[in-house]
Amino acid sequence: MALGLGLIGTGFMGKAHALAYRAAGAVFGDLPDVSLEVLCDTPAERAQSMARQFGFARSTDRWHDLIGDPAVDIVSITTPNALHREMALAALAAGKHVHCEKPLALTLEQAEEMETAARAAGVRTIVGYNYIHNPAVSHARKLIADGMIGRPVHYRGWVDEDYQADPELPWTWRAKRSEAGLGTLGDLGCHLVSMAHVLMGQVSSLIADIQIIHETRPLPGASGRAPVENEDTASAIVRFESGAQGTLCTSRSAWGRKNKLDWEVHGTKGMISFSQERLNELQFYVNDGPRAEQGFRTILTGPEHAPYGMFCPAPGHQLGFGDLKTIEVAAFLRAIAGGQDVFPDFTDALGIERVIHAIDISAREGRRITL
Amino acid sequence: MALGLGLIGTGFMGKAHALAYRAAGAVFGDLPDVSLEVLCDTPAERAQSMARQFGFARSTDRWHDLIGDPAVDIVSITTPNALHREMALAALAAGKHVHCEKPLALTLEQAEEMETAARAAGVRTIVGYNYIHNPAVSHARKLIADGMIGRPVHYRGWVDEDYQADPELPWTWRAKRSEAGLGTLGDLGCHLVSMAHVLMGQVSSLIADIQIIHETRPLPGASGRAPVENEDTASAIVRFESGAQGTLCTSRSAWGRKNKLDWEVHGTKGMISFSQERLNELQFYVNDGPRAEQGFRTILTGPEHAPYGMFCPAPGHQLGFGDLKTIEVAAFLRAIAGGQDVFPDFTDALGIERVIHAIDISAREGRRITL
Amino acid sequence: MALGLGLIGTGFMGKAHALAYRAAGAVFGDLPDVSLEVLCDTPAERAQSMARQFGFARSTDRWHDLIGDPAVDIVSITTPNALHREMALAALAAGKHVHCEKPLALTLEQAEEMETAARAAGVRTIVGYNYIHNPAVSHARKLIADGMIGRPVHYRGWVDEDYQADPELPWTWRAKRSEAGLGTLGDLGCHLVSMAHVLMGQVSSLIADIQIIHETRPLPGASGRAPVENEDTASAIVRFESGAQGTLCTSRSAWGRKNKLDWEVHGTKGMISFSQERLNELQFYVNDGPRAEQGFRTILTGPEHAPYGMFCPAPGHQLGFGDLKTIEVAAFLRAIAGGQDVFPDFTDALGIERVIHAIDISAREGRRITL
Amino acid sequence: MALGLGLIGTGFMGKAHALAYRAAGAVFGDLPDVSLEVLCDTPAERAQSMARQFGFARSTDRWHDLIGDPAVDIVSITTPNALHREMALAALAAGKHVHCEKPLALTLEQAEEMETAARAAGVRTIVGYNYIHNPAVSHARKLIADGMIGRPVHYRGWVDEDYQADPELPWTWRAKRSEAGLGTLGDLGCHLVSMAHVLMGQVSSLIADIQIIHETRPLPGASGRAPVENEDTASAIVRFESGAQGTLCTSRSAWGRKNKLDWEVHGTKGMISFSQERLNELQFYVNDGPRAEQGFRTILTGPEHAPYGMFCPAPGHQLGFGDLKTIEVAAFLRAIAGGQDVFPDFTDALGIERVIHAIDISAREGRRITL
Repeated sequence: MALGLGLIGTGFMGKAHALAYRAAGAVFGDLPDVSLEVLCDTPAERAQSMARQFGFARSTDRWHDLIGDPAVDIVSITTPNALHREMALAALAAGKHVHCEKPLALTLEQAEEMETAARAAGVRTIVGYNYIHNPAVSHARKLIADGMIGRPVHYRGWVDEDYQADPELPWTWRAKRSEAGLGTLGDLGCHLVSMAHVLMGQVSSLIADIQIIHETRPLPGASGRAPVENEDTASAIVRFESGAQGTLCTSRSAWGRKNKLDWEVHGTKGMISFSQERLNELQFYVNDGPRAEQGFRTILTGPEHAPYGMFCPAPGHQLGFGDLKTIEVAAFLRAIAGGQDVFPDFTDALGIERVIHAIDISAREGRRITL
Repeated sequence: MALGLGLIGTGFMGKAHALAYRAAGAVFGDLPDVSLEVLCDTPAERAQSMARQFGFARSTDRWHDLIGDPAVDIVSITTPNALHREMALAALAAGKHVHCEKPLALTLEQAEEMETAARAAGVRTIVGYNYIHNPAVSHARKLIADGMIGRPVHYRGWVDEDYQADPELPWTWRAKRSEAGLGTLGDLGCHLVSMAHVLMGQVSSLIADIQIIHETRPLPGASGRAPVENEDTASAIVRFESGAQGTLCTSRSAWGRKNKLDWEVHGTKGMISFSQERLNELQFYVNDGPRAEQGFRTILTGPEHAPYGMFCPAPGHQLGFGDLKTIEVAAFLRAIAGGQDVFPDFTDALGIERVIHAIDISAREGRRITL
Repeated sequence: MALGLGLIGTGFMGKAHALAYRAAGAVFGDLPDVSLEVLCDTPAERAQSMARQFGFARSTDRWHDLIGDPAVDIVSITTPNALHREMALAALAAGKHVHCEKPLALTLEQAEEMETAARAAGVRTIVGYNYIHNPAVSHARKLIADGMIGRPVHYRGWVDEDYQADPELPWTWRAKRSEAGLGTLGDLGCHLVSMAHVLMGQVSSLIADIQIIHETRPLPGASGRAPVENEDTASAIVRFESGAQGTLCTSRSAWGRKNKLDWEVHGTKGMISFSQERLNELQFYVNDGPRAEQGFRTILTGPEHAPYGMFCPAPGHQLGFGDLKTIEVAAFLRAIAGGQDVFPDFTDALGIERVIHAIDISAREGRRITL
Repeated sequence: MALGLGLIGTGFMGKAHALAYRAAGAVFGDLPDVSLEVLCDTPAERAQSMARQFGFARSTDRWHDLIGDPAVDIVSITTPNALHREMALAALAAGKHVHCEKPLALTLEQAEEMETAARAAGVRTIVGYNYIHNPAVSHARKLIADGMIGRPVHYRGWVDEDYQADPELPWTWRAKRSEAGLGTLGDLGCHLVSMAHVLMGQVSSLIADIQIIHETRPLPGASGRAPVENEDTASAIVRFESGAQGTLCTSRSAWGRKNKLDWEVHGTKGMISFSQERLNELQFYVNDGPRAEQGFRTILTGPEHAPYGMFCPAPGHQLGFGDLKTIEVAAFLRAIAGGQDVFPDFTDALGIERVIHAIDISAREGRRITL
């Protein structure tokens, strides 16, 4: 029996999910079958035309119907942030597996409620932090686990983009705390923290500061400007449970940065660094052999870096953003079939959201937050 | 009525075709429907299991049956080079559209025969030089066409890999001229020349040299070594019809190069350069504005560079190798639906193969070859 | 009348000063003459042989004699950190201009005493933060001052090296707070902060954390290990007087980093970034012109970036570390000749040291420090 | 007794020589003393003021006087290309050691005459191909000699600049064959070939093509345009005596390239590549260890790469163009003191010029030239 997919949303992430669920089975030979059952969006016409384009059997403009559909086993939620909570809770209550786009929710309280519901429901959940599924990142984790850089002692992580860099960009709901929640921390913070968690383990405490760069924005179609209520940048100095330290920094107003999710892991024997804008490359330095020949190696991902080889048997041919999503979907489908947890489920995601909100609280209250 | 696809081969390129034909319609909303009808490979069991994985309706181990299948409108050929000719001729004879992997054929005579048959058949053909479908390359072409770098006057192209760099790699059919045809020119030369053609126009004449680096290779499972009959490197100095000059160089024995299809177009006002190992980036220099602020710009592809936006609306998120194949498939499907030619059809490919063979002939005969 | 130079120390920085004072007049045509009068080091034989190599007229192993020498107008201090204070105070008391290597002193109290003495002495002083004299940095300052990137709103600075990365490096005086003062903050912090100051203006407050990675080191020539008392890494989140925010991070235990003094200035219209390991390049992004052609420009320094042209009239030929020292010396000689202040004199340096020590205090006391 | 230097010319190279001769003894402790005796330029006032700036004892506007001066042991020739021959012959006839800037001469016949005279004179000569003295290049030679990349089998070299890229640059003597000799081959070709020779050994034969991009240039201060008689680009496919092959390409009209003397050496076990615009870095790949960790290493030069450490004991601090000239001068002074030859003396340079002229002849006559 194929697993039935119900997908809510047809925007950036909706399309990414549709493409990934279509591709996963053909890329990986070992996955349970998936049938694309229901696509939901508004208005109904859009849902219908996108269902045809994406290859879904049916469409609807009522997400409750999708969740209630008996052919739907997996509910994929790719709607605006403010809707994640209600949809996820309904899907969990209906006993469906839930694939939720990031961030989990607008507030920490909502995230906690969702995590509790997920644990109670006994289904599989996953949150769409897809960058951690990059074979380059997986290989970095392996290098670290194998002791290739010694003990990891320091970490630096960044996520910078420029989608809010222009001072004259009109005011939108994104600037309003009650609708969008946090600013750059809400949009990009989950990538910042999830990457730190998979590479370094849990954050135990932190100090932080935040900044609103553009204090007002022009109201669209009107004279006057409205205030921006959430942060453009956030910076934290963190301590990890392992004893390592590091910094986590993010900006949504960093001109020229398009998807600069960068990090470096400092170890006692070497270093690994990475830039998402060159997602098929790892920089790897190890204190080994003659000093005169040491240097950072640019490792180009290839079939030695699983599961790259499932996409292409030749090295250096490059995976793309969509391929990372396909790997995420494959991991989720395997977890559903096997009945085990997958990283990051709602519990993992809650841990990540706690760090994000701790950054916000530390910045506002001027004190160290212990997690 | 959907277009029926018959795909021959399930290796590197077979899988790439299957994934691309599955994805194209969902990525692009404007394509004719495609149904995955028949998959052919040997043995039959492999064909059957891959058909299931890739989502084909039927499978066979007899390619003649696939070509004869009335539900098949498009025949996709991804078999070893020596089989391209026979399969393509049969498919053309049956009135099928043909999607043939590169190179077109082992010899120039075969390529000419295939091109003649394609013109006679009145169907659409395309050859899988997928790198030219990269939005970065398309944008470079637009910059050149718009005069942004002035008149293009000089060109440098390279395609380097290292799959034959190891001297102790066992001897295979790839080393035999009668089975594999040319060496690096046969494997990589079409990328070298097709890229030059789309960026600079036709090559009019050239001088060249070739080199066998590893003159023998160990026979697998035997004592002794067998000769390598085809070239490891090829280098040409070309003149274009436009009056421009340039160099074309390729090696299959270049350690560390995984897919280094690089090029630079020198213009009278600026320069554009590119490296396939960073396929989402263009380097663009223009002599404009204060000299103190001039420099090569790293342009990261994004939604401004069509059709990137069909995959992802956010810049810097990176397309992968598979996505380029999807763009190629989309171009072919549009050509079939519209009845117009698509680049590179068998006629374009023949022009490209002529340059490749001219490099070989010039090197062997020590004289300038005019095309 | 030529200005007489007395140089104390013949190590890394001693040689760098000697070479720079030898070169400056020949590079720049507009400087006062300098005569290399006295070189001081111990033992006397070393002083004598290095004086001959560097071209000094006389040598001594008694620095008091050098300072008291009537032919000496400028005293250059390149000795270990713990000696800076005493020598500088003596030179100032003798009415000599003082060129002191960084850091100014071991403690903030010492730095304050030196600054007071310098102001009282009415002579010219400079501290050797030579990286800020790079034409690339000067050009960045010009771009910022000209509004090319709008209002500078965020800053990130790093200085990483790996000279203390090896866990098995023997214990030295560098690990002892009473002899070496701070750890990475003492060695590298002045570059971190001086660069931030010249690009962004004064830091007004900060929060910070520090870390000792290697808690003990093996005692040389003995069994057992001794404790490391000063920090391997330091991280700060700063607010500038301008309202901008940012982070300052440094490590002396970052494998693979040799001189990674990097920074990025985020502005409301663009961004500039820089890496000292490629000291002849600026990365410059401006939100101007079509989005499809935007990207970071790699500006290679050349004669348009003064005073590069005094070294070489052709762009892209590269200045080196020694050339930056020559520019520093030229700035100092001009200040002496003109009677005006030069950046960074002891007063500027004290401001920089205050930030360094504030980082240390914030980390130890767990509170925001306002400067 | 110090060696007396007479320097003819005070332009780009004149200043570079003056600075390098001033610095060499202080950088290296093992060199014979040098006294800066006579500086020659026209008019006499310029010679006088530059002598003062550079620290020469005397000045003259008559180069014959300089050569005849008994205090002058070394004659350094940095004048326009057309004067090299006459000055070098006179200096050799006077028994002086000769440091001649590149190119040796305008024509091959002149170069041969100069080489014959040099051999007859029994003095030391050197030609200013200073890029080959880079510690990064020396280290590459050592890696190759040590077999680290196996047998060197293929080479690619380029020298690109953009000083003639602008179509509207006025016509000068550089465009006239009788005054300037060759075009880009004359200006940049010696770097192209000397680098190939030191890395790969002698070129044995070649085929080539050349191109004039800008066929005319505007006459300064006049209406009308005058023809450009020498090449803007040159490309050659070469065979080395060792059996290796490769390409050598140069352009003086390559927008954005400031000093792009790049090369790559392909070996049977690895590859080394280099770019002069990042002169402190080597890219080094070796097929060793797990494939998953292989990649090009960026080796930053440091004290392990002699004689970097004579300039600076800390890695990653960067040498500059001037430092390479200082290394060249040191090599020359050691050769004079030791009475042995130094690379590249006039005989080596003649071999290099022969290759340059062979490229020109091959291109003009359309045939392979054997050296």
